[in-house]
Amino acid sequence: MSKISPLSGFPELLPAQRAVEREVIASVSRTFELHGFANIETRVVEPIERLAKGGEVDKEIYVLQRIAAEPDAKADLGLHFDLTVPFARYVLEHAGHLQFPFRRFQVQPAWRGERPQEGRYRQFTQADVDIVGRDELPFHHDVEVMSVMVDALGRLPIPRVSFQFNNRKLIQGFYRGLGIDDVTEAIRVIDKLDKLPEDEVARLLVERVGTTPGQAQRCLELATIRVPDTSFVEQVRALGVSDELLDQGLEELAAVVEGCRAVAGDRVGVEANLRIARGLDYYTGTVVEIFMEGYERLKSVGGGGRYDALASDGRTTYPGVGVSFGVSRTLVPLLADGVLSGSRPVPSAVLVALNTEDERAASTAVAAALRARDIACEVAPEPAKFGKQIRFAERRGIPFVWFVQADAETGQQSHQVKDIRSGEQVDADPATWAPPEADLRPTINTEETPK
Amino acid sequence: MSKISPLSGFPELLPAQRAVEREVIASVSRTFELHGFANIETRVVEPIERLAKGGEVDKEIYVLQRIAAEPDAKADLGLHFDLTVPFARYVLEHAGHLQFPFRRFQVQPAWRGERPQEGRYRQFTQADVDIVGRDELPFHHDVEVMSVMVDALGRLPIPRVSFQFNNRKLIQGFYRGLGIDDVTEAIRVIDKLDKLPEDEVARLLVERVGTTPGQAQRCLELATIRVPDTSFVEQVRALGVSDELLDQGLEELAAVVEGCRAVAGDRVGVEANLRIARGLDYYTGTVVEIFMEGYERLKSVGGGGRYDALASDGRTTYPGVGVSFGVSRTLVPLLADGVLSGSRPVPSAVLVALNTEDERAASTAVAAALRARDIACEVAPEPAKFGKQIRFAERRGIPFVWFVQADAETGQQSHQVKDIRSGEQVDADPATWAPPEADLRPTINTEETPK
Repeated sequence: MSKISPLSGFPELLPAQRAVEREVIASVSRTFELHGFANIETRVVEPIERLAKGGEVDKEIYVLQRIAAEPDAKADLGLHFDLTVPFARYVLEHAGHLQFPFRRFQVQPAWRGERPQEGRYRQFTQADVDIVGRDELPFHHDVEVMSVMVDALGRLPIPRVSFQFNNRKLIQGFYRGLGIDDVTEAIRVIDKLDKLPEDEVARLLVERVGTTPGQAQRCLELATIRVPDTSFVEQVRALGVSDELLDQGLEELAAVVEGCRAVAGDRVGVEANLRIARGLDYYTGTVVEIFMEGYERLKSVGGGGRYDALASDGRTTYPGVGVSFGVSRTLVPLLADGVLSGSRPVPSAVLVALNTEDERAASTAVAAALRARDIACEVAPEPAKFGKQIRFAERRGIPFVWFVQADAETGQQSHQVKDIRSGEQVDADPATWAPPEADLRPTINTEETPK
Repeated sequence: MSKISPLSGFPELLPAQRAVEREVIASVSRTFELHGFANIETRVVEPIERLAKGGEVDKEIYVLQRIAAEPDAKADLGLHFDLTVPFARYVLEHAGHLQFPFRRFQVQPAWRGERPQEGRYRQFTQADVDIVGRDELPFHHDVEVMSVMVDALGRLPIPRVSFQFNNRKLIQGFYRGLGIDDVTEAIRVIDKLDKLPEDEVARLLVERVGTTPGQAQRCLELATIRVPDTSFVEQVRALGVSDELLDQGLEELAAVVEGCRAVAGDRVGVEANLRIARGLDYYTGTVVEIFMEGYERLKSVGGGGRYDALASDGRTTYPGVGVSFGVSRTLVPLLADGVLSGSRPVPSAVLVALNTEDERAASTAVAAALRARDIACEVAPEPAKFGKQIRFAERRGIPFVWFVQADAETGQQSHQVKDIRSGEQVDADPATWAPPEADLRPTINTEETPK
């Protein structure tokens, strides 16, 4: 075989980096479970007609075919490109076996054949949390599911994240109250504020949506409201538009911002940002995008919202609300920049040294005694001088080396353990000794400033 | 959308079943870590020329293509069909960043477009554990890696499994010592003992391999040796064949059987079974197949062995030894038969009841206090009479319901928690109360006899 080149868009982690990813996934999963969300995994393939809905993402779908298929066989399966489509299908397929409201989280890869760039990969892992009702889903679940993600991300050692909330009813009601007919097109134009200057967006509102210059001005005023509390309610009221749906949107958004602020510690920002629309058409209430400080170039690292028809089988409709965290989008850049790193590439806290190959059984017995008390360890692969064994441990970041010595005359064993960082070496009993809690497992090292 | 039918060969688990799978994966992963194995994940796609090596599995490979690709574009990526091919590529690609011997485990799905049947799926999860050296890998790692899997499976609440070991050097040396030239073809014929009667296999040895009837007889005698200890050494010696490679094989197999017996508790059988060959050509020493009692129809639920050239880049060769456990192959039938089931479909140990929607904040505060002490819980989705809330918990298997009552006059809260199984209801403090350890998380229920 020849030299291997990486596949663009398919990042792979080295063991110490993977330890970071595992810790992050374990942490968010544990938070979701504490809030009563059950984990599921879906198969990674879906019928193509379920995946391809005429959206932008369609052309990025990977289709699948057996290599031995007839040349003109129609491919009918594709890899899922998010976790929402398969989840909606799972709910429909298994509805008879689920209890509603159904609270689930899901951490799996998804695939998109798009042009790879930082934060955008062809295979990427997401962590989604959703609540789905049958026929109806009370609004308080919006507050709940968003708070859960705030709680989950607040526990991670990543740079500070900011949840920016808006509400589709608020936007829609405002536009309607203002007298704009084509609300969808107006949202689409306002969404361009990221890329175009305000006066250009105003011009497009007049041209494409048919607003008056005055209406366009008010749309822009709404879209520039951004506050870390519920003061947006008064600011919107001050714009003088009144509409029933607007009122409902204001109330919902205020409840979401308040509920999330209540659980957000220092590591999470919560804002009402009335420019957020999320392009996707199926959101019907709460919408959110999550950004990470110092990594605004990644655009959002997560997002979601309320969809009143996540799934439907014609008779029953399943409304849902949920939010997705881009695990790969967040971690791959942070690991590449050295902002996060794993403390060591191996789980072992102890290397049990080996004097001679004949004495392997003695070292293996020490390892077994440590493992019985949940201490990960490994026996040196070959006998070597002590200095060489210490260097072996050093290269792997294993903090402790254990030495077994048998007295040549009595055969009696003596045990010592060395902390190779401090050099301290002490007598130890394999049945009772334990490393400090902090050394038991690989941990995540953080660097304050990105390189 | 219309009614959803399952996709044949792509089994999906309900939440309580998935809880079982998660527990099993967490358990084997923890055992691997205790033995110093680091987790990695590889991307799920590989270049087709790396996957397709002319073997039986080739025609089952799923190839991948962007839906928007030109109609005549050559597909160059496929989904991996095991975890060994991607692991070998990972070692080559990242060798400069790895420490050897490299101890890794990997739990991921793989895909094969084969005809689905019980235990055989188109998407299935495997748990692999391997040790890979650079240039050389001492034999004692064979004993080590096999013992680790014995340890891991012995901790699972699945039916008793049996590790059946053999050694390629033993077979090869025996055939060579017997004067058989085409050892590979002889192994292939002996492998048919599963399907054909002995005299038919003997006839094929004479016909295809060119043995004498006497040689064929001895091959059969070797292949029928099966013992739960190292007594096979004498039985083989008694067949009167002598060869240096045979000696080495006998010694190695004895060491593996002895090492694994030392860690196997009641739940794992360890045998030398000299019929085991494993069809794959790259094994060069230890080979193993794992069977599960009562589920012999699944064939092996795991297997592996030593391969002296797991990977090579032309200059450096990486020998390895490892073993794979079929997570889906084992669990999907056990879950379907009800031999294993999850104790509940939700992580929540407590449902916090809700009197009126206005009092949601009080219930949420109780939930937060419980979560702060690592107790998973959820607040009732809507206010209801106590009986209805208890039935809600019952349907989800949530063992405890928490009631908050505010005194109408003083506003003072009183708390009670009810074990809905016993009906016992006691005063409780959300800051100190905890459920019994056994109720904290969903557990695995086992049924002795398969249905």
